[in-house]
Amino acid sequence: MRIGIIGAGRMGSGLGKLLARAGHEVVYSFSRSREKLERLAAESGHGARASSPADAAAAEVVILTIHWQELETALAQAGNLAGKVVVDVTNPMTESDDELAIGFSTSGGEELARRTGARVVKAFNTIPSELLHAGPARLPERVAVCFCGDDDEAKGITEQLIRDAGFDPVDVGPLHGARYLEPMALLVAQIAYEGPTPEVGYRFVAIPR
Amino acid sequence: MRIGIIGAGRMGSGLGKLLARAGHEVVYSFSRSREKLERLAAESGHGARASSPADAAAAEVVILTIHWQELETALAQAGNLAGKVVVDVTNPMTESDDELAIGFSTSGGEELARRTGARVVKAFNTIPSELLHAGPARLPERVAVCFCGDDDEAKGITEQLIRDAGFDPVDVGPLHGARYLEPMALLVAQIAYEGPTPEVGYRFVAIPR
Repeated sequence: MRIGIIGAGRMGSGLGKLLARAGHEVVYSFSRSREKLERLAAESGHGARASSPADAAAAEVVILTIHWQELETALAQAGNLAGKVVVDVTNPMTESDDELAIGFSTSGGEELARRTGARVVKAFNTIPSELLHAGPARLPERVAVCFCGDDDEAKGITEQLIRDAGFDPVDVGPLHGARYLEPMALLVAQIAYEGPTPEVGYRFVAIPR
Repeated sequence: MRIGIIGAGRMGSGLGKLLARAGHEVVYSFSRSREKLERLAAESGHGARASSPADAAAAEVVILTIHWQELETALAQAGNLAGKVVVDVTNPMTESDDELAIGFSTSGGEELARRTGARVVKAFNTIPSELLHAGPARLPERVAVCFCGDDDEAKGITEQLIRDAGFDPVDVGPLHGARYLEPMALLVAQIAYEGPTPEVGYRFVAIPR
């Protein structure tokens, strides 16, 4: 599958490498440094390449890993996303990056869907980038990635990408659930950055029936 | 330790039984049915008894397990809680019980602390009552209970109660974190009630260093 990544920070590069390793064709975009995009593409292999947000947005799946404050710029460069499958990894943080900028009665995921008309799936936003870079395969057990969205096809694609990246997908319902997944990202961040190690994930455990 | 439970629904009864089993002296209160409180006390053993919210509030630790819409009534009956250690298990749900009534720029835990002057610790609100009743010992592995608060002594006491109830305590910082733990409760509810079983918990898994 061709996957366009918009945002080449720690989350974008971590996901890109995991998905390239799983055999997907990754297009990196949206960095001030073209050199950085080229380096990421070279490190990822499997046909990965550096390009523009518009080119990334032409892929079968778009993964959005920008900082929320860059949303306007990124959307302008990506062009029309209506009907696209967009995996929204962002958390709607303030400029100072220490609080959610919106929430409770809406969410970043829902706002993104409203603004673009894209088939948005919220996913991967609850995982520290350090875990992506270290690789989930180094964990003693598989961990979960919660996702939610309103479009079944887009959710099915995202579910497969979550598996391909080495995680267990956990469907938490409609995109409305981004109201819970975005605060959860801050909870995980607290555990990751105030705890013994940021290379941490979560899983759900049930009593066997 | 003497533990006063205000709210004798599924959460209150589940926690009460686990803590009584661990050797704590539990005081059940705040039910329309005195008979129900008496029955819970009898089922719990270890000196558990039925009483009034005011009596429960006189215990060393108060555990608040009411529905949020009953807060006014419960606080009026409990009396002055200033300086008390209060473990806040509530989620600030609307009357229709399907959304948070407050959040984002505050939380139920913070509002409770502001209103009462109590040393509030948010805890156990992210655990389905079904898991408490089934007993976490039946899980294939120990799961976590996230907690947060501003008072170190109150947090230390709560941490021990979490262990006594059979869970691994995970400290997620100041009471401000209730803004993340309350939405997380709705996430867990989604997984518990839309998934294969409500007898479910969560844990964090790190790459070994």
